[in-house]
Amino acid sequence: MRACRREPVPYTPVWLMRQAGRYMREYREVREKTTFLELCKNPGLAAEVTVTAVERLGVDAAIIFADILLILEPLGLRLEFSKGDGPVIHNPVRSGVDVERLRELEDPAALDFVFEAIKHTRQALPGNLPLIGFSGAPFTLASYAIEGGHSNTFAKTKALMYGHPEAWHRLCEKLSSVVSNYLVAQIEAGVDAVQVFDSWVGVLSAADYREFALPHTRPLFDAVKKRVPTIHFGTGTAAILEELREAGGDVIGVDWRIPIDEAWTRIGADRGVQGNLDPTLLLGPPARMLQQTDSVLARIGNRPGHIFNLGHGILPSTPVEHVQMLAQYVHSASRRH
Amino acid sequence: MRACRREPVPYTPVWLMRQAGRYMREYREVREKTTFLELCKNPGLAAEVTVTAVERLGVDAAIIFADILLILEPLGLRLEFSKGDGPVIHNPVRSGVDVERLRELEDPAALDFVFEAIKHTRQALPGNLPLIGFSGAPFTLASYAIEGGHSNTFAKTKALMYGHPEAWHRLCEKLSSVVSNYLVAQIEAGVDAVQVFDSWVGVLSAADYREFALPHTRPLFDAVKKRVPTIHFGTGTAAILEELREAGGDVIGVDWRIPIDEAWTRIGADRGVQGNLDPTLLLGPPARMLQQTDSVLARIGNRPGHIFNLGHGILPSTPVEHVQMLAQYVHSASRRH
Repeated sequence: MRACRREPVPYTPVWLMRQAGRYMREYREVREKTTFLELCKNPGLAAEVTVTAVERLGVDAAIIFADILLILEPLGLRLEFSKGDGPVIHNPVRSGVDVERLRELEDPAALDFVFEAIKHTRQALPGNLPLIGFSGAPFTLASYAIEGGHSNTFAKTKALMYGHPEAWHRLCEKLSSVVSNYLVAQIEAGVDAVQVFDSWVGVLSAADYREFALPHTRPLFDAVKKRVPTIHFGTGTAAILEELREAGGDVIGVDWRIPIDEAWTRIGADRGVQGNLDPTLLLGPPARMLQQTDSVLARIGNRPGHIFNLGHGILPSTPVEHVQMLAQYVHSASRRH
Repeated sequence: MRACRREPVPYTPVWLMRQAGRYMREYREVREKTTFLELCKNPGLAAEVTVTAVERLGVDAAIIFADILLILEPLGLRLEFSKGDGPVIHNPVRSGVDVERLRELEDPAALDFVFEAIKHTRQALPGNLPLIGFSGAPFTLASYAIEGGHSNTFAKTKALMYGHPEAWHRLCEKLSSVVSNYLVAQIEAGVDAVQVFDSWVGVLSAADYREFALPHTRPLFDAVKKRVPTIHFGTGTAAILEELREAGGDVIGVDWRIPIDEAWTRIGADRGVQGNLDPTLLLGPPARMLQQTDSVLARIGNRPGHIFNLGHGILPSTPVEHVQMLAQYVHSASRRH
């Protein structure tokens, strides 16, 4: 929390995206008994995997176990997580008519399981350990809603964006409004900070970001920024760091493609930074992972406002021992820097 | 050719990556009778689709119809292009032992069909129309060889790179040597320029690019640079433009994520640039496509050394009329700029 506010800290805090996930035996054991979506909707189990990850790794924050796409279901999109293939939306948005058909999240209880999981987790966590809530940003959520799953080209997304900008903006306005309420409700349920995942926004140029994404992302930060610290995450964003900053976030996420000190200079001293180790380094060998960790910490020096994290989520094939080693190393090495 | 040498031209030359491809009826008709791999290996048909694309579009260069992965087959990798799923390599490289098992391309005739296609095409094209040869760069070729197909995370590629750097470098040295010979043979068969595709190299940081990619890409350019102009292409390269330049290329490709004038400033005035329209703009509407085309041309002004192209290949769902309109517009609008 102090790092979010750019206050001095005795050591660099660290948490890792997808720290509760398939790479961890305890998580796989829970998942043997339930599907991914069922796990998300079971507050007791969601809290359990959230807390277990923190305890096993010794990290400095928990992030509530959930998925950015959960919010699409109560809007009327039929979501499925198929084995190995990732998320599938069976009735994707392809036109202005589809956009108008989306429901307005009339029943605020539709996502109660997330708020319940937050309450369970908050009770189970030590009082000094922050719990992070999160949501997708409108661009990334819209891309899943339109593509019907993951995409390499974002062709359908951009075809709607460029070809039917009024439908695009209407879709993103809806998402922005729903996500704002969702984040506020997470805060009321007890999260201490929120992260907005605009995971795929790096496929936009700065001009397109300003036209198609920024107007819908900024209201999220405006809605929550006075309540809790906010983190704004994306990947492949080397060409749009200034625009991400402008959209909002007390802390801006930086992936491994750009040195974190150069990124911070562009982002500006009035914001914190989070990142930026390549998650593939955790596959091994540990020596290289720790050497690169040192490099990230050395680039930051003792400037307050850095949260150590990966540039993207932990990969499923990552050895848990490497993740534990990394967390310990960030603590010990940052005391030296 | 003059643009490659940064000499003044009456209008901006244009060609488009994957200009012979599924979006074009004539191409689909040829493909109905043959698989993708059979088409690549049939010099008559490969020349036909190459030439047809140029004639239909009115572009200023042909690029030989082939695939960057063809070179992997004579090394002993079993390559297949499965319907809809893209390339599959049935015996991917996963270890140093696998690397040593790769053959040294003992039979230089293994890729004769490419050189034959080049000769056929060169004869069929008007004399003033350049024919571009190409190959993958070692990093991108290695990533396919290791992943066994396309990847979103490049986890296996980087696991080998970080975990077994000696095997990585040995693999890339082999690829670099084979590709150098392959490009030289294409030049001897009659191509007027060559493009090196390092399509996925944007997943590397600048430091990793210098350590793992640059030493193997530079020899390609050294091998051919005195013979014909060279183009160095990648996507998502906003963080490594300076490094791409250093690796080589008379012309550096720039995708849509970064304004082409800013990219050119970083690349340097002693190189040309190629790009940088987002291929999704060709899906429509034409007005926006042309407006963005104007924006690219305006950013360049009348500075010689720009080849207009997309930031990546033409998408299969692109209307051919839009591509024709784009080529005509680049010619007419650049005469005005």
